Amino acid sequence: MQTHPLAALIAAADRAISTQDYEVLLDFYAEDAALVVKPGLVVHGKAAIRRAFEGIAEHFGHRLRVGQGEIQVIEGADSALVVMETLLTFPVGLGREETVTRRATYVFRRDGDVWRCVIDNSYGTDLLTA
Amino acid sequence: MQTHPLAALIAAADRAISTQDYEVLLDFYAEDAALVVKPGLVVHGKAAIRRAFEGIAEHFGHRLRVGQGEIQVIEGADSALVVMETLLTFPVGLGREETVTRRATYVFRRDGDVWRCVIDNSYGTDLLTA
Repeated sequence: MQTHPLAALIAAADRAISTQDYEVLLDFYAEDAALVVKPGLVVHGKAAIRRAFEGIAEHFGHRLRVGQGEIQVIEGADSALVVMETLLTFPVGLGREETVTRRATYVFRRDGDVWRCVIDNSYGTDLLTA
Repeated sequence: MQTHPLAALIAAADRAISTQDYEVLLDFYAEDAALVVKPGLVVHGKAAIRRAFEGIAEHFGHRLRVGQGEIQVIEGADSALVVMETLLTFPVGLGREETVTRRATYVFRRDGDVWRCVIDNSYGTDLLTA
C-alpha cells in the first residue's frame, strides 16, 4: 500500500505546510472540508483552514516541518480512509529540535479523477483520550 | 457530541451484529462499502460484508455482543469520520466472558438525508502496529 496515490498527495500537502505554500496546500482540501486543529476545535472550509495553518506556522516560529511514516489506505465507495504516522519536527529551546509522531486519520473523497481531503484529523483515535 | 444521529445509527448496527440480523445490518452500509475484517484483510460490497459477519458470528459461537463507549463525530463535506470505543464481549472458556475495547474508525457519507457507512475499520490506527 506504500505506493497508493494518496501517499504522494499527502506528502505534497505536508511539504506545502512545511514551506507555508498555502495556495498548494488549500488545493488539497474540498471546499467544505473539516480540519481538527486540536482536540475540541474543528474548523470548516478553506478560508478557516488557511487561517488555522497560518496560526500553527506562527506558533512554531515558521519552522514546523511535517513528514510521513507508515501509511495504510482503505478505499470504499469512492471514499478513502488513510491512517498514517505523521512526524512533526519543530524547534524547542535554543537551536534544538524535537520530532513527535502522531497516528493520524484522513478522509478523502474522489471527485472524478481527483481525490480531495474532506476530513483532516491528525490526532486519530487519540481524540478519545484528549 | 454524544447525541449525534450517527451514534444512534452505530448502536443499531451493533445490536444487529449482536442479534445476527443481517437484513438490518447490511442496510447500514453503502453498496460498495469496505470492511476491515482484520489487519491485512479488507472486503468490499454488501455480499462480502455479510459473509464476513457470518464468519465472525460463527467464530464466537454466535455469542458476540457489541457495545459503544466514548464517541466523537467530525463532519466535513457531506462525509463524517467517527472515532469510537467499540466494546466486544465474547465467551472464553467454560461459562466465562471477556470484554475488549477497540478504538474504532468509521467513515460515513450522506446520501440525501441518509448516512451510510462507506468504510468500517474497527481497528482504527492500530492497523499501523498490527
